Amino acid sequence: MQKPVFTPEELNAYIAEVYPEIIDQLPQYNVRTIEAGRVVVESKTDHRHIRAGGTVSGPTLFAIADMGGYCCALSVLGREALTVTTNLNINFMRKAEPGLLVADSRILKMGKRLMVFDCTITKDGKTDIIAHATGTYAIPPK
Amino acid sequence: MQKPVFTPEELNAYIAEVYPEIIDQLPQYNVRTIEAGRVVVESKTDHRHIRAGGTVSGPTLFAIADMGGYCCALSVLGREALTVTTNLNINFMRKAEPGLLVADSRILKMGKRLMVFDCTITKDGKTDIIAHATGTYAIPPK
Amino acid sequence: MQKPVFTPEELNAYIAEVYPEIIDQLPQYNVRTIEAGRVVVESKTDHRHIRAGGTVSGPTLFAIADMGGYCCALSVLGREALTVTTNLNINFMRKAEPGLLVADSRILKMGKRLMVFDCTITKDGKTDIIAHATGTYAIPPK
Amino acid sequence: MQKPVFTPEELNAYIAEVYPEIIDQLPQYNVRTIEAGRVVVESKTDHRHIRAGGTVSGPTLFAIADMGGYCCALSVLGREALTVTTNLNINFMRKAEPGLLVADSRILKMGKRLMVFDCTITKDGKTDIIAHATGTYAIPPK
Repeated sequence: MQKPVFTPEELNAYIAEVYPEIIDQLPQYNVRTIEAGRVVVESKTDHRHIRAGGTVSGPTLFAIADMGGYCCALSVLGREALTVTTNLNINFMRKAEPGLLVADSRILKMGKRLMVFDCTITKDGKTDIIAHATGTYAIPPK
Repeated sequence: MQKPVFTPEELNAYIAEVYPEIIDQLPQYNVRTIEAGRVVVESKTDHRHIRAGGTVSGPTLFAIADMGGYCCALSVLGREALTVTTNLNINFMRKAEPGLLVADSRILKMGKRLMVFDCTITKDGKTDIIAHATGTYAIPPK
Repeated sequence: MQKPVFTPEELNAYIAEVYPEIIDQLPQYNVRTIEAGRVVVESKTDHRHIRAGGTVSGPTLFAIADMGGYCCALSVLGREALTVTTNLNINFMRKAEPGLLVADSRILKMGKRLMVFDCTITKDGKTDIIAHATGTYAIPPK
Repeated sequence: MQKPVFTPEELNAYIAEVYPEIIDQLPQYNVRTIEAGRVVVESKTDHRHIRAGGTVSGPTLFAIADMGGYCCALSVLGREALTVTTNLNINFMRKAEPGLLVADSRILKMGKRLMVFDCTITKDGKTDIIAHATGTYAIPPK
């Protein structure tokens, strides 16, 4: 897997530039680390991100997983904001109270046309998995 | 498939009561019709729901599909707010400008412990599919 | 959706030519009908296709759904044997004794690079859904 | 994660007893190792397991992944042959010539009613991922 083309600071800045609307959904997300083929994103969640029962909602967890995949793709492709999700499959495994969530995403395949990744979401500092996703991004033709 | 236990008005009122936070994500969603085993939900989308490139974002489409499944489950189970998504698989097929989206959801299986549904999202009045999802809700034990 | 390029007889003959190994898995499959964007495949299942408990196995149902998607792709693309599945998500909903299974597959999107389909499997003559799948085929570049 | 209730030899023997039909699909599968929450299964593949183009077929890879999940469930549940797959999502990432395939499966969640796992399939001794699956098994009520 090739060396990442962004540092976390650069990737945060790039996303803020091309996808400012993410702030409405994940107001406090942050790219924490980038390695070859792996990106860790964190996102604070609060009362706006809960569902019936008071736990973090499915759409919020989806948004975090999808952001994890987007960051994986951009870490290889660079300034390719228009790479888009074509498929995402997510399993919700444990309820979580709002707080800091950590999404650890891995590139499973980086092809010419498709990138496949998975993403494991936990509460910060815990090992129990809250949600696990697998997804595909389509890479725009040159 | 049994007769729905809610009218659209009743289901809108019930969701507003038990899941008011949905308004943050889908401010203008509305249950349009409920039949046995089928619920049509609509949601207006605007500049807050877009991703890089100006089209409706994946998390927004996920939220609409998930709401479609939730409404299917509630249409059979009644006031069971704590039925939760365990799995959702979504394919994003066409980009869509913001506007009124329509999610047509069907119950594929209503079991004692799990409900399986699919959901087809189109722009209002069009037939091209923007996104298609399949998902599972876990039904709380009595 | 464009007119199919194969009749059922032609498609059965083409698959027997390019993918003879399918016979090991689904010895008695048959393309029943082809319409624009829709293919119905049937497959007899017997004692070789069961799992613990005596019902039709997951791999057998997967093979039938995957064949449904392959036939959808070929019905549009013609002699493109090398179009391959990139993703398949399947929900198993009801147990089924061996017998004639019918897979009704629809093209949800026919793009330049990807085709997305879904497939509903029932026992012949019944309406209860045994399994439902959604999948993606990658179309080889010209 | 609790200590496995089977050794590989015991689990191979149990599967041969309750699910002898698997031999038709995966004639040379073998449980290689079992740890707490993790099972490695291998399966030789040959000319009977290929698809158009000469590479290992989707249904074969599905069967291996599904067997990986089944072994994970049995490693915790013991002689519960009737635990069944409810959902399996698989991404096919690289073509593989027939040969020895290795499926490394992990339990992501072991609940009272559902077990969620993922499974990574590689060629023996290689690290490139051929297929990756995530799935759910329903645990029979006591």
